[in-house]
Amino acid sequence: MDPLAPAGAGTPPMAPLAVSLGDPAGIGPEVIAKAWAVRAAHRLPAFFAIGDRRSIEAVWDGPIISIAHPGEALARFDGGLPLLQVDDPGDIEPGNPNLAGARCALDSLEMAVGLARSGAASGLVTGPVAKAQLYAIGFAHPGQTEFVAERCGVSAGNVAMMMVGPDLRTVPVTIHRPLARVAEALSVELIVSRARAAVRGLVRDFGIAEPRLAVAGLNPHAGEGGAMGREEQDIIGPAIEQLRAEGVIVTGPHASDTLFHAAAREGYDAAICMYHDQALIPLKTLYFDLGVNMTLGLPVTRTAPDHGTAFGLAGRGEANPRAMIAAIQLAGQCARMRALAPV
Amino acid sequence: MDPLAPAGAGTPPMAPLAVSLGDPAGIGPEVIAKAWAVRAAHRLPAFFAIGDRRSIEAVWDGPIISIAHPGEALARFDGGLPLLQVDDPGDIEPGNPNLAGARCALDSLEMAVGLARSGAASGLVTGPVAKAQLYAIGFAHPGQTEFVAERCGVSAGNVAMMMVGPDLRTVPVTIHRPLARVAEALSVELIVSRARAAVRGLVRDFGIAEPRLAVAGLNPHAGEGGAMGREEQDIIGPAIEQLRAEGVIVTGPHASDTLFHAAAREGYDAAICMYHDQALIPLKTLYFDLGVNMTLGLPVTRTAPDHGTAFGLAGRGEANPRAMIAAIQLAGQCARMRALAPV
Repeated sequence: MDPLAPAGAGTPPMAPLAVSLGDPAGIGPEVIAKAWAVRAAHRLPAFFAIGDRRSIEAVWDGPIISIAHPGEALARFDGGLPLLQVDDPGDIEPGNPNLAGARCALDSLEMAVGLARSGAASGLVTGPVAKAQLYAIGFAHPGQTEFVAERCGVSAGNVAMMMVGPDLRTVPVTIHRPLARVAEALSVELIVSRARAAVRGLVRDFGIAEPRLAVAGLNPHAGEGGAMGREEQDIIGPAIEQLRAEGVIVTGPHASDTLFHAAAREGYDAAICMYHDQALIPLKTLYFDLGVNMTLGLPVTRTAPDHGTAFGLAGRGEANPRAMIAAIQLAGQCARMRALAPV
Repeated sequence: MDPLAPAGAGTPPMAPLAVSLGDPAGIGPEVIAKAWAVRAAHRLPAFFAIGDRRSIEAVWDGPIISIAHPGEALARFDGGLPLLQVDDPGDIEPGNPNLAGARCALDSLEMAVGLARSGAASGLVTGPVAKAQLYAIGFAHPGQTEFVAERCGVSAGNVAMMMVGPDLRTVPVTIHRPLARVAEALSVELIVSRARAAVRGLVRDFGIAEPRLAVAGLNPHAGEGGAMGREEQDIIGPAIEQLRAEGVIVTGPHASDTLFHAAAREGYDAAICMYHDQALIPLKTLYFDLGVNMTLGLPVTRTAPDHGTAFGLAGRGEANPRAMIAAIQLAGQCARMRALAPV
């Protein structure tokens, strides 16, 4: 199965992807419109944007086609960027976020999740939001990922974030914690849970029948037998043993500095990392603006470009759409994989 | 000044480099001999090995020229690998280290440092040793770096390790500590001291008149204003301020995941990193077997390949000499820089 191949004669057309614009004052509208403009060169699957039409018009002068239902996006995709409008947020000024914009972002996200859940959209790509703005309107989740998980009825502990680059996938076990508090958050259960989500995602979204995991150590040289930290023996090693007992193909704990060079990357399908920068440094060092943030463990495909709202850049026409293009490409590939081999 | 250019008519020939073989049962003898064999293609400066002749003969059948003084290495470098013999360690079996071999490694290191200090050698490249073996014969330093520092009369606190790749240099502020104990080891004084050593090294060894430093944060997103850790505000920021007050060109604290991609690397001459893997992951992800470990803050140039004794590989003829070649090249460039512009 080549997820990049055009649908064959016997394959029903896949529903379009839902792409939420994110904060209307951020660079989301611009990079999504720019991605539409290069849809042919990048072989993007059909998608539609969800959000406020004027937030796109403020930063882009290409064609926009207002649609009333996702189904319209398939037939009309080549004529203009299909847009599903949410409640009018009033005036939006690129670069100057406000609470009405935050509500618009949340409405877009909510609608995108609902359409993906219903099958009207084949998957979900989320534009960047400003957490501070969302918190101000009562948003009670740490981020979009946890919101999407809840709307899908999945506990946040059973989803995992995966960073995806052209030949590297990393899954951070802990994410937004101070470095000094990473070790205390590690447990056999948490590592096993993230690894299981990674395996499920690699099977379901990437069509890898027998995924190979590599688990990073926490300490320099993976602790060097306990001389530089014991988490490898006390926590990470036992987690690996448990995964092996469950039939997972897994190696480690590996010294993290030698886990990400080209030859090493060939040895696994995903690296399970203990902390944010252990997962993100290799990905962004190699593929700075190509990294896609993907949520594993959900009943729907969900990707996001790995950048923020970049309010300082909004409205100047200079935002780089590469990460959004990569996020849409990946969502399309994964959604097609799910359609071909439903689990 | 191009340190790669051949010495001009008015330039006196540089003394040869001293290269200690490291543990005779490790891969040091093999990679040093292999480096000599490709000296022309890699434009290596003249060097001589220090150690036991039989440890080379056991793994290499090229020409070896025993010398009695470093000066002989210059004239005879093209005829064979010049070797300065240390006390006979007895039988050495590649892959099976023993205490006589550890003594041999220590003798080689001691002699190499002495010759570099005296000026008979223009710099020092150290082959890999086995710390456990050295400890067993009473070696009381954490590693070769601290030993060399002491022999040079420099406090270990005033030297810094720098990892050098083709377009990236990183300096870890802390090195072989458990990750959970990194934060408590950071102080304004330590960061400033490492940064000063980096500046001295960049000026003296690399000929960069006004070095630009980038300082990494400790936490995800460099703490995001204190939301994910306060070390950036409490320790790293003040260290940067102090360095600036001393006239150092320095930026940071930077989110470490976006500090090492190609465009970011153009913005600084060295990145000051808070822990081992923050410095080593980007270097080895990009340049796995090209990384050179260099000691800054010494009165002599000292480099080392960034790999160990690899006893399991010794004696099979399969050891890759790339890191040793890079270490000899870099030592030669830095030694020439020092000779051209003595500080």
